[in-house]
Amino acid sequence: MHKKLVGACLALTMGAGAGYALNAMAQAKPEDVIKYRKAVMNVQAWNMRPMAAMVKGQQPYDAQLFAWYAGVVQQTSHMLPDAFQAGSDKGDTKAKAEIWKEPAKSKAAMDRFATDTAALVAAARAGNLDAVKGPFGAVAKNCGGCHEAFRSK
Amino acid sequence: MHKKLVGACLALTMGAGAGYALNAMAQAKPEDVIKYRKAVMNVQAWNMRPMAAMVKGQQPYDAQLFAWYAGVVQQTSHMLPDAFQAGSDKGDTKAKAEIWKEPAKSKAAMDRFATDTAALVAAARAGNLDAVKGPFGAVAKNCGGCHEAFRSK
Repeated sequence: MHKKLVGACLALTMGAGAGYALNAMAQAKPEDVIKYRKAVMNVQAWNMRPMAAMVKGQQPYDAQLFAWYAGVVQQTSHMLPDAFQAGSDKGDTKAKAEIWKEPAKSKAAMDRFATDTAALVAAARAGNLDAVKGPFGAVAKNCGGCHEAFRSK
Repeated sequence: MHKKLVGACLALTMGAGAGYALNAMAQAKPEDVIKYRKAVMNVQAWNMRPMAAMVKGQQPYDAQLFAWYAGVVQQTSHMLPDAFQAGSDKGDTKAKAEIWKEPAKSKAAMDRFATDTAALVAAARAGNLDAVKGPFGAVAKNCGGCHEAFRSK
């Protein structure tokens, strides 16, 4: 019952996410969008770090804590479309123009992040370190993949 | 069924939140905690703004968009305990020492934020502007209340 409920919640959550295409959010000043984007990235990095430490054995595995961080990272996937509004390519940002020039490609990357983080949350709830390593690696690959494709050095 | 499910999800979400007391998270450098705290506050403010504009009639009410923003703000309530880790009272921050000197008071404020934002999410799902005004006002009061009590001018 509990597992079913978690699954249903994830479906609901992701349904909500899928309801908004890139740039469908309310428009704001480019510099504010960029600040928001950096805030979201900070939140993501912050919450990835302790999971990485647990996966690498640098920190004891705490199943509840791991699931908590996984949940937060999953939640940030909802924030991405808004953080990449059109017009926020100019200013104090390393974001490449490709993000907006190839919307299908960037949307696919965001969707993949939502899917992979949801899978990590599901795995994390089971509370087994070996079982979270794969899904965590998949999520981490999203970070690197997007930074490689869409962020200037 | 759908409403019941949303309720169950909220309960689950809040259950996860309640599982972690203030400062129970992995320790990090104070300056990084402060940066994280500002990032979380930025995410909160960003997502409050369009809801405020809709409530005030400055922007057309879009029920789906409103519910989206309400959900993001609710999610940020999970991030607060981690953003106020012990030791992050010194540095480039306006956070008052009371936060850590009176942990019951600051925890109560965070819990109230989690409860009030969950109520806002529930109200937002019903999709009626008049029905979200009260719950939105309650959430906004949390922001002002905490800033008044716990933030230096």
